[in-house]
Amino acid sequence: MARLPEFDRTQVVEAALQVFWQDGYTSSTIQKLLRAMDLNRGSLYAAFGDKEHLFREVLDQYVDHMQHILQPTLIGEADPLRAIRSFLERVTVQETTETKKLGCLLFNTISELAHTNPPLAQEATRRVQILRNLFIDRLTQARQQNRIRTDKSVGELADYLVALAAGLRMHCKMHAIDDELQKIIDVGLDSLQPTATAH
Amino acid sequence: MARLPEFDRTQVVEAALQVFWQDGYTSSTIQKLLRAMDLNRGSLYAAFGDKEHLFREVLDQYVDHMQHILQPTLIGEADPLRAIRSFLERVTVQETTETKKLGCLLFNTISELAHTNPPLAQEATRRVQILRNLFIDRLTQARQQNRIRTDKSVGELADYLVALAAGLRMHCKMHAIDDELQKIIDVGLDSLQPTATAH
Repeated sequence: MARLPEFDRTQVVEAALQVFWQDGYTSSTIQKLLRAMDLNRGSLYAAFGDKEHLFREVLDQYVDHMQHILQPTLIGEADPLRAIRSFLERVTVQETTETKKLGCLLFNTISELAHTNPPLAQEATRRVQILRNLFIDRLTQARQQNRIRTDKSVGELADYLVALAAGLRMHCKMHAIDDELQKIIDVGLDSLQPTATAH
Repeated sequence: MARLPEFDRTQVVEAALQVFWQDGYTSSTIQKLLRAMDLNRGSLYAAFGDKEHLFREVLDQYVDHMQHILQPTLIGEADPLRAIRSFLERVTVQETTETKKLGCLLFNTISELAHTNPPLAQEATRRVQILRNLFIDRLTQARQQNRIRTDKSVGELADYLVALAAGLRMHCKMHAIDDELQKIIDVGLDSLQPTATAH
């Protein structure tokens, strides 16, 4: 049985992640991936199966990276509302111009593949649920402190926050102007307030 | 000088629009486009120049189609706040499942090309400004009626509404569940309220 060449799996997945993130799923040809990962076709298929399986592993690694953003903000910040705000600011106003244009790999994937490759779009959606669940945790805490509106469930408010995050990411791609982004966050978070209940 | 074959320009652009909308800009190869448009390569280049120029014409035609959605809602609805709401509902809860998954061609283009083809992403962004300007018109009217918050400019609130629309479109691609979409609209529009000003 042929031995597989030794390589650092995290490192080659990272190389693939950069290709997928920059070019999108469909444009990331096997040839581009092989070059970036410095692997031959046989090693790639032996190690990862096909492109779709490689992409799933890329999505997992992307979520791992997100922990570095989530831990000090949405997860680690003591105040639940400040936690939500600091996460939204971290992925927008505090992002580099380059990353603002790249956007979020999960939302990019959903945007690109919802119609043409629903199973892979679903893989990305499943990982967005991690974010939604973290929003739910902090909203639940904020509700216990009587600091958010009570006419909508925390799940519904979490759906809204995911949509707000996606909209902010889109705005980053259109206009990466920090003052505009900050205003959208300010306005958007007012929707959580206990006073904002009348129609 | 060779005569160009006769064809209905709107009709062939429509065929190209469907390809670009379904597959995205990069995946829409010239070969796919020619097949859909029922043209040969020479006629395509003679009539439209290159793929980028064809795409600009496709974006214009897409904006023309949007008029059918904008006229009875954001533009034509007498009440300015109802106008905003009815537009957001029209492009989400009232959309077909197919179109929910396809999303908005302008946002799709920005998501796909902001990093790899900034000039074309900018073309799409410029057309999103049409929507932003319509939001500004109706927000200005709502402000005259003292029905929206005064601590943010109508331009800032319009930016927020564009982000909300983009976020809703993303939610359509993740979960096309009307009740969830309606709740996001309800929560999101509360941010416009005069009462939602404290931080």
